[in-house]
Amino acid sequence: MQLEILPTDLPLLRGFRLGALDAGLYAHFGKPTRPDLTLIASEVNCAAAAVFTTNLVKAAPVLLDQVYLAANPSAIRAVLINTASANACTGERGLKNAEQCAAWTAEALSCHKEQVLVMSTGVIGTHLPMSRMQTGIQRLAEQLSSTPEAWQAAARAIMTTDTKPKLAYATFDGASLIGIAKGAGMIAPNMATMLSVIATDVRIAPELLQSMLRRAVDNSFNCIVVDGDMSTNDTVLVMANGLSDVTVDEQNAAKFEATLTELCVRLAQAIVRDGEGATKFITLHITGARSAAEARRVGNVIATSALVKTAFYGGDPNWGRILAAAGRADVPLDPARLSLWYNDFQLVADGAPLNYDEARAKLHAQQRELTVRLDLGLGTAEATLWTCDLSHDYVSINGHYRT
Amino acid sequence: MQLEILPTDLPLLRGFRLGALDAGLYAHFGKPTRPDLTLIASEVNCAAAAVFTTNLVKAAPVLLDQVYLAANPSAIRAVLINTASANACTGERGLKNAEQCAAWTAEALSCHKEQVLVMSTGVIGTHLPMSRMQTGIQRLAEQLSSTPEAWQAAARAIMTTDTKPKLAYATFDGASLIGIAKGAGMIAPNMATMLSVIATDVRIAPELLQSMLRRAVDNSFNCIVVDGDMSTNDTVLVMANGLSDVTVDEQNAAKFEATLTELCVRLAQAIVRDGEGATKFITLHITGARSAAEARRVGNVIATSALVKTAFYGGDPNWGRILAAAGRADVPLDPARLSLWYNDFQLVADGAPLNYDEARAKLHAQQRELTVRLDLGLGTAEATLWTCDLSHDYVSINGHYRT
Repeated sequence: MQLEILPTDLPLLRGFRLGALDAGLYAHFGKPTRPDLTLIASEVNCAAAAVFTTNLVKAAPVLLDQVYLAANPSAIRAVLINTASANACTGERGLKNAEQCAAWTAEALSCHKEQVLVMSTGVIGTHLPMSRMQTGIQRLAEQLSSTPEAWQAAARAIMTTDTKPKLAYATFDGASLIGIAKGAGMIAPNMATMLSVIATDVRIAPELLQSMLRRAVDNSFNCIVVDGDMSTNDTVLVMANGLSDVTVDEQNAAKFEATLTELCVRLAQAIVRDGEGATKFITLHITGARSAAEARRVGNVIATSALVKTAFYGGDPNWGRILAAAGRADVPLDPARLSLWYNDFQLVADGAPLNYDEARAKLHAQQRELTVRLDLGLGTAEATLWTCDLSHDYVSINGHYRT
Repeated sequence: MQLEILPTDLPLLRGFRLGALDAGLYAHFGKPTRPDLTLIASEVNCAAAAVFTTNLVKAAPVLLDQVYLAANPSAIRAVLINTASANACTGERGLKNAEQCAAWTAEALSCHKEQVLVMSTGVIGTHLPMSRMQTGIQRLAEQLSSTPEAWQAAARAIMTTDTKPKLAYATFDGASLIGIAKGAGMIAPNMATMLSVIATDVRIAPELLQSMLRRAVDNSFNCIVVDGDMSTNDTVLVMANGLSDVTVDEQNAAKFEATLTELCVRLAQAIVRDGEGATKFITLHITGARSAAEARRVGNVIATSALVKTAFYGGDPNWGRILAAAGRADVPLDPARLSLWYNDFQLVADGAPLNYDEARAKLHAQQRELTVRLDLGLGTAEATLWTCDLSHDYVSINGHYRT
């Protein structure tokens, strides 16, 4: 298996064509123009699976996709992705607009609207500029391509506050997977929701794909924290069109799931590395827990703590903040059993500091990539999370007025 | 009732004497010297009540105070407060040091060590410089005074990253209450835990005082959010020495509780106004909830959201972030029933934006003091929280290396 971010070549992926262009969506909102509309289409029906945000405030495209996917898990043909407007908190009109976009795309691709999914990311509470969407969809449908450049363009066109496109691929016994993702905070200036689309030409039943995807997301996208905010639009979608000779079934399911998971991990880590204002990439390893769920809960509180994240930014081996965050995770723990390492350098044992060399601790804390391990001393379960620091630039990016 | 922050005169409070000085604790850690040790003593035994941090990682002074207070709720004589070291995550040695400080104070005041409470705030994971503590306590005991200046000095000496001392008073039927507080983040550079001491000369049973204090704290200190982090050392203590003619019992309990609560609210709001890097004071009013607990949970997620707080900093009426935060509060809600106001200016109805004047919304968002009301449309319960923004200065203060 090969995985690479921003590869210069891509494996053959049969039957997917895609395109991206500037549909004038940003211009409509008075912002500098850039590619803002992307269409990924399969020549034939796909088995599809998706994981959506658990936020109770769900954007219109999420609500629509949930209905369409439930009705057609084996017959999805395309996904349309726009930036500039999240089409969230837009009421009935937002739902109608999302449906209309699916209908226009279906018309251009000669399929039913219920076979087209839609994703939006951008400012919450703004309506899609519908005439620009219509024109953009029609133009897009005429220029679909299966070249590596088309994937690169798609990875770029779905960016908002991202500074880098996120594209990864994997091969699987002669079949391929190509994935793109975007996301850098929740909504900043108020956008940057997390979206990802993975296309593959394996043949697979949608139920199997859905159960695999849920676990893969749980071990990848659900293990990253930029700022702890959860978007109204977060969606990860896999489309499998079955045009290779490779069938995924009970025989090779575990192997395919491992491939899918690693692809998701690469995309997820790319999101953290490109986190809004991020200067550091932190791997948080919580060990010695009574259960993986408790380990993850402790890790999540640490990863979202503003004090922990600013200490990471300052390169300060300020482990007291990490222990204090663990103590408020609503997980039973014994402070006297806590141990902590920065990389392989132990600072804390039995809940109290070792007589360590502060200069060495600081050297570890100032590395751009750092693994912090917290052992709870209560069991054998563990969890790994990836996060970034909280910097001046994060505040600048998110404090800036939207216009 | 009169309440004032940093008053120039204070009401007569019988039987309390206090003092503050530079005991060289900061100097021990190689930092610029400043007053760092405070002692507040009553001439006679006090009924006392306290609310402590719920963090599972509790500092040694918190663990000690819980034992002493449970044993002597009617016979507390004094509280010793140090800065520079939080005496947290310090194991058995930390507990012994806290106990020794109480013993030295008791010796100087001619009482038992179990009648002395201790509070610490400062860097986590450092041990108290004990010889400096001993000398400081002895010197302090010789210079106790009941003057307003002594209260001002105490309010200043317990500060860490606070930029302003926090002192408030109230009178009650000829008796008095004087309170001081400190706190500006959790632990920054890593200190700034929240501490408060309120002294009063009413006569009151400790059980009654404890139940009152718990409710008062719940409606004051527990309603403020600076950064969402919870300290290892947070403590609010009330000492009532009964030296006035005023007895609090069933007859006037409600009135006294109102006075105590308002005093706590003033001190709590002073902490938020002085929040690390804060440029704005935000009142969050969550209405239309099914229960006050749910209203508070929604408010707490909004108040701790980095994206919401940076938008407040930028003066951006970015209400989408507020709705998105509400949606992940783990509280049942119907997005289509959400309404939102900045002060009296409504931006959102039925979960979608009104056709409001963006310039007017921005004017509201850029005020230094702002009330944001979110109505959930589900019931009649409500909650009010006070919070501040997340600024570049917050990152500077907390990202800075400790030394």
